[in-house]
Amino acid sequence: MSKLVPPHGGKGLVCCLLHGSELESEVEKAASLKKVSISGRENGDLIMMGIGGFSPLNGFMNRADWKSVCENMQVSDGTFWPVPVTLSCTKDDADSITTGDEIALENADGKVMATMKVTEKYEMTEADKRWECEKIFLGLGEDSVGGKFWEVAMDDHPGVQMVMGQKAFNLAGPVKVLSEGDFPEKFPGVYMTPKQARAKFDEKGWSKVAALQLRNPMHRSHEYLAKIAIEVCDGVFIHSLVGSLKPGDIPADVRVKCIDTLIEHYFCKDNVVQGGYPLDMRYAGPREGLLHATFRQNYGVNRMLIGRDHAGVGDFYGMFEAQDIFNTIPKPEGAGKALLCQPLNIDWTFYCYKCDGMASLRTCNHGKDDRVILSGTKLRKALSEGAEVPDHFGRDEVLTLLRAYYEGLTEKVEVKMQKAASGDEIK
Amino acid sequence: MSKLVPPHGGKGLVCCLLHGSELESEVEKAASLKKVSISGRENGDLIMMGIGGFSPLNGFMNRADWKSVCENMQVSDGTFWPVPVTLSCTKDDADSITTGDEIALENADGKVMATMKVTEKYEMTEADKRWECEKIFLGLGEDSVGGKFWEVAMDDHPGVQMVMGQKAFNLAGPVKVLSEGDFPEKFPGVYMTPKQARAKFDEKGWSKVAALQLRNPMHRSHEYLAKIAIEVCDGVFIHSLVGSLKPGDIPADVRVKCIDTLIEHYFCKDNVVQGGYPLDMRYAGPREGLLHATFRQNYGVNRMLIGRDHAGVGDFYGMFEAQDIFNTIPKPEGAGKALLCQPLNIDWTFYCYKCDGMASLRTCNHGKDDRVILSGTKLRKALSEGAEVPDHFGRDEVLTLLRAYYEGLTEKVEVKMQKAASGDEIK
Repeated sequence: MSKLVPPHGGKGLVCCLLHGSELESEVEKAASLKKVSISGRENGDLIMMGIGGFSPLNGFMNRADWKSVCENMQVSDGTFWPVPVTLSCTKDDADSITTGDEIALENADGKVMATMKVTEKYEMTEADKRWECEKIFLGLGEDSVGGKFWEVAMDDHPGVQMVMGQKAFNLAGPVKVLSEGDFPEKFPGVYMTPKQARAKFDEKGWSKVAALQLRNPMHRSHEYLAKIAIEVCDGVFIHSLVGSLKPGDIPADVRVKCIDTLIEHYFCKDNVVQGGYPLDMRYAGPREGLLHATFRQNYGVNRMLIGRDHAGVGDFYGMFEAQDIFNTIPKPEGAGKALLCQPLNIDWTFYCYKCDGMASLRTCNHGKDDRVILSGTKLRKALSEGAEVPDHFGRDEVLTLLRAYYEGLTEKVEVKMQKAASGDEIK
Repeated sequence: MSKLVPPHGGKGLVCCLLHGSELESEVEKAASLKKVSISGRENGDLIMMGIGGFSPLNGFMNRADWKSVCENMQVSDGTFWPVPVTLSCTKDDADSITTGDEIALENADGKVMATMKVTEKYEMTEADKRWECEKIFLGLGEDSVGGKFWEVAMDDHPGVQMVMGQKAFNLAGPVKVLSEGDFPEKFPGVYMTPKQARAKFDEKGWSKVAALQLRNPMHRSHEYLAKIAIEVCDGVFIHSLVGSLKPGDIPADVRVKCIDTLIEHYFCKDNVVQGGYPLDMRYAGPREGLLHATFRQNYGVNRMLIGRDHAGVGDFYGMFEAQDIFNTIPKPEGAGKALLCQPLNIDWTFYCYKCDGMASLRTCNHGKDDRVILSGTKLRKALSEGAEVPDHFGRDEVLTLLRAYYEGLTEKVEVKMQKAASGDEIK
């Protein structure tokens, strides 16, 4: 009998992925259906709906759900949900589709990922998108960039850019998912469905499970967060985004190796599980923090670690806005409607020489000069330039891996430049 | 509106301490009442009943409560209570007292601490005391010293010795407490009633408050426990026993100074409150751990830090028996009857060179040689012999205070010896 938190929504794990003969016949059918192209974000969302990570969602949202989610963080039946899960298409596509049609959803690699029975199509005007952005990307609703949100966001906010770049219509309806993409092959043992993660936690007898969200290499601050969670929970799920990020970010396979080496050298294996999930970053700031907790509940997690600038985007959000937003969410009544995964908030953490170890602004009263503080951005810069990284900031084993990655990058660039210089261009 | 956990028992803070004219007239009346001597333990229990620390108890237990507490950890109305709170007297005293009498309770300093209306007197035979000891001092009920509990306990278990040394009769009844003893004067600002502690926590807006129990000087392991609690709760209450301990233990005023200095140099003052409580140690092992949580609830605490060998006595209990016992306690239904203060369990902690900071057996996978492990007992030995203390074990500021205390002790002994040698004996 599992002691884990139940999946969100009160309907168990809602998995839209087909198997066996059902899958075969649906793939066959899909070949003759009208194809609609999907974005990377939609591709990830589909896989999550396939494996139950987005339970209780079983398809893309209609206008009522979209509106209610933006406005109240609830789908129209009242169930908590923090961000729109919508599918956009061109006006041409929309014109050629009638409600009731079945369509095939094809990703950027030309792979049909799912079929969908269209139950609604609705226009998304510029004003609609802008309204969505204001609801979703303003965090706690304050304009955190000095009243210049729109001026700045269109240039610098990848989440806003993504939504504003979506097509003119949305299509809604339940999906049948045909594939998990290349995640199972690319990240064997790390890419994990909620069912697989729950089985691992059950095997360990866990009931209080914390999750650490990662999209950057795991440094000592992350390690410290994970270890606080281990001290006070049954174990921690180190759960990385293995979908797409911004250009310049460190790819998932390198980050996964860093975590492997960190677990090997600095953790007790019994108390930690590494996993990866197939989403792209939405860059939705505090609302994305809520999404992280929501889908983690489906993975069996009931405590979501939220640190400094969780899911942050540039300077758009307050350092702890992703913690504060948990105090503002609706708590709908009715079986499974409210979010059960609670935040496990941790303050700004760092190594402090006087404390003689890791500390946070809640525990350390020393001065700035006693602390080793380095942002991920500055670290990436130091590593990519081959510069020294301050003592106590990272673990040597991890820094070695990251240096090798950056050296590889430099070599590739140098080879490219040499080849370009010698006229022997890469085809 | 306080956000703190309500006092145990569902009746608010039950405070038996009298004030003003009520106190004056009771003191006057007490002068003419029969005096019964009380032990240090009973003295502490009385003060706790005075200030609401033992809510909902309002007096010493009758036979039914005593039996039910020993057997089921519940007083006879079903309310959780982990250890007997009884008052013993000689057969002569018992013979001269009739049920319904009022008596005055006088401590070892000759001070009348309370009056009591005797509602019951009951014999405590050797067999009764032995039965109590087996129920209370066997921890989880296993004989943890290789089947030789009784052989070993009578020599080495101060808790068992105390109970077996109690007098032949117990007296039960509600008390009127006349004094807090010398605790308010001896520990100004540190000795604190539950009402005062709650007011401090309310002022800070706390709702999730952890308590750290201390009866030994606060070292880095204790600091680490407190800091984990600070990371995941609103704040920590560093709450020391300021009653009596075994000979050879470090006195409360020295320990309080160590905590002061630690808070000053290594904590953020906003997140920590120091307090002292007037009990003697019962040396009741795991059951005492439960008592710690029970009276902490009255102080407004809802998470009780339980580390390695909490309230341990020699080798009598398993390292984590005081954590495990929380899983076995009754959860009576009915308003206030169940314990609401939950354990915050932390594994064995230490400094680890490879971890480059504090760690526990749940987070560190390194070897014995990488770790700085030192028991309080060994530290006391090192300090009293003026020997070096390993790096990272303690904070310099604290070790300096402890060294000064031990040097003072040595000087006193030397002065005594010199005076004895010169024939000039101390009167």
